[in-house]
Amino acid sequence: MKVVSVIDSFKGCASSEELNEAALLDLSSVTWQEKVNIPIADGGEGTMEAIYATNGGKWVLTTSKDPLGNDIEGSYLITSLKNKKVAVIESAVFIGLQHLDPSEESIRKATSYGLGLVVKDALQREVGEIYVTLGGSATSDGGLGMLAALDRVSYSTKGKENPLLTSTDIGFNSNEQLFKQTKLFAIADVTNPYTGENGFSKVFGPQKGASTAIVKEMETKAKELLEKVEKQYGTNLNDIKGTGAAGGLGAAVVLLGGTIIEGFPTIAEMIGLEETIKEADLIFTGEGKIDAQTENGKVPYGVATLAQKYHVPVIALCGSRSQEIGEMSRLTLGTFCIQLGPVSWQEALDKQRTLKNIRLLAYELSQVLLKGT
Amino acid sequence: MKVVSVIDSFKGCASSEELNEAALLDLSSVTWQEKVNIPIADGGEGTMEAIYATNGGKWVLTTSKDPLGNDIEGSYLITSLKNKKVAVIESAVFIGLQHLDPSEESIRKATSYGLGLVVKDALQREVGEIYVTLGGSATSDGGLGMLAALDRVSYSTKGKENPLLTSTDIGFNSNEQLFKQTKLFAIADVTNPYTGENGFSKVFGPQKGASTAIVKEMETKAKELLEKVEKQYGTNLNDIKGTGAAGGLGAAVVLLGGTIIEGFPTIAEMIGLEETIKEADLIFTGEGKIDAQTENGKVPYGVATLAQKYHVPVIALCGSRSQEIGEMSRLTLGTFCIQLGPVSWQEALDKQRTLKNIRLLAYELSQVLLKGT
Repeated sequence: MKVVSVIDSFKGCASSEELNEAALLDLSSVTWQEKVNIPIADGGEGTMEAIYATNGGKWVLTTSKDPLGNDIEGSYLITSLKNKKVAVIESAVFIGLQHLDPSEESIRKATSYGLGLVVKDALQREVGEIYVTLGGSATSDGGLGMLAALDRVSYSTKGKENPLLTSTDIGFNSNEQLFKQTKLFAIADVTNPYTGENGFSKVFGPQKGASTAIVKEMETKAKELLEKVEKQYGTNLNDIKGTGAAGGLGAAVVLLGGTIIEGFPTIAEMIGLEETIKEADLIFTGEGKIDAQTENGKVPYGVATLAQKYHVPVIALCGSRSQEIGEMSRLTLGTFCIQLGPVSWQEALDKQRTLKNIRLLAYELSQVLLKGT
Repeated sequence: MKVVSVIDSFKGCASSEELNEAALLDLSSVTWQEKVNIPIADGGEGTMEAIYATNGGKWVLTTSKDPLGNDIEGSYLITSLKNKKVAVIESAVFIGLQHLDPSEESIRKATSYGLGLVVKDALQREVGEIYVTLGGSATSDGGLGMLAALDRVSYSTKGKENPLLTSTDIGFNSNEQLFKQTKLFAIADVTNPYTGENGFSKVFGPQKGASTAIVKEMETKAKELLEKVEKQYGTNLNDIKGTGAAGGLGAAVVLLGGTIIEGFPTIAEMIGLEETIKEADLIFTGEGKIDAQTENGKVPYGVATLAQKYHVPVIALCGSRSQEIGEMSRLTLGTFCIQLGPVSWQEALDKQRTLKNIRLLAYELSQVLLKGT
């Protein structure tokens, strides 16, 4: 019998690989001749690691700029997918929230310029496809910084300030040659439009440090840009899902001729997850929190959906769940919380405790399952 | 298929019967043609209810004295066991901790006299056996109050003060006639001796309000009494397990010619639990807390032991568990905590939340078990 563990990381607590390892550890090797640990991610943190774990590849260390314009070193992955050389870049490594304390000052400065430099670096390595994960970015520059680094737009404060708020002289350049032989993809976990009530200014601005006044200012500038793009290219950015992801980085990818795609299906395909699941007798999946939102493209939902296609039983494990978990109820045998009793959030985030609990729970659930056999 | 739920009450949260009902509620009636709710107790609170649920009987409302000597009304059960008329009395109803706030003053006053009056009431109803549960008592009088109410001892402060601490004129009377046709049993969940490091003064004194000085005083008086009994009857109370239960009530029962017995096996036999378990295909058991102490005669251990005898799979449910649960690991398929995430103890004690969680968990575990079938 074959058991596969495909648990998403518990954010701020333990990685996907560690959780899988713990879940599989005490399962009887006599019964489960094959125990498979599949690190997974939904396009946020851990995406490169998940792809690397299955596909291998080469880590490229490169220098770039952080959101505030300081020099920074970081790695991205070059790997092979279906005989194509591809790059996988996690935005957050270079322009993530960990590089600053969100404030009115930081949001006026933060630019995605550094991310554009990394994409440029990957382009020079003659890859066939570039995948950029958008989660966790600190920027709200409408994607202008990234576009500038790739010479798609020009403005005078390039690389130093948030051009959306500070530049008045934004002009578009043609760069038809740049992505002629390389396809660009943005992996986004949200579908927000560029402007409006669900646009990046109003939805993500505040958590990145924007005051009400700045949100208003950002929205006005974003609308101007939207109109400019529509006038010049006939494209309404709000018609494309996800252009408002990561402070407008989704739109930058679109303006570079790229495509915005969903995280889980993309990564699942890259790592051949369906093939692995198809032959399994039991799947463990999970995430830190499982609730009614999980069915919106989160890892446990994606895994359970694939498993159901092949009638493979799925057990979900989590640090916390709600009573109502939507589709997850139907897709899994059960969604079990790993806590052993009343604990604080702080205790629950302890990695060693979490790994011990998941190890115990997965073992006991396997005993229940096997008893029925 | 038959599923039996035998979950002990979650103290301060939900009763055995309520928890069983919740656990069975969502289990498919198609698969589980028989769903059996067996209220259970280990000799503490809920013992009379558990026996009544299976055996029926008559509730006797009687007047007596609370530990501080105030008039009090309370009920005990008269039922039929193997064609014998028997009484089941829960000490705590009459002399329980809920009747006072433990303090130096209360421990100097509290007496088990009222419990003796209830036993006397039962005797007058010509029962063949009297079972007295000792758990939850507020008294530390060495059992003297109960003995006085049944004329087994005499002293001058009868019924008003803790005679162990206040009486200097204790004398034993013969009462050979009293229990000639009635057997007396004490149901104790501890095996503490009368005096010494594990005696009632040192172990239970402090939680009943005794200061260090009072503990010392109680221990001295208890030793004097122990020696007096040994001199007069040749019996060393410390040789009998449980004489130190409930502030020495165990000794009182012994001095009345009775026997100290364990709670779970006694109740299990009274309600024919072994017969019910024998024919089951799945057992749910549990308790508020399951840990390494559970194997010392607690309900889940007792249930799991009976079930193992007949190879019936057991799943334990609890509000809180430790990683290490001793024998319970071996005896159950798994011991699962019902919490859905980090919660405070206060939230965890909410009855409605607890019943919802146990309902959900039992259902999902049954799905896991059935999947293996």
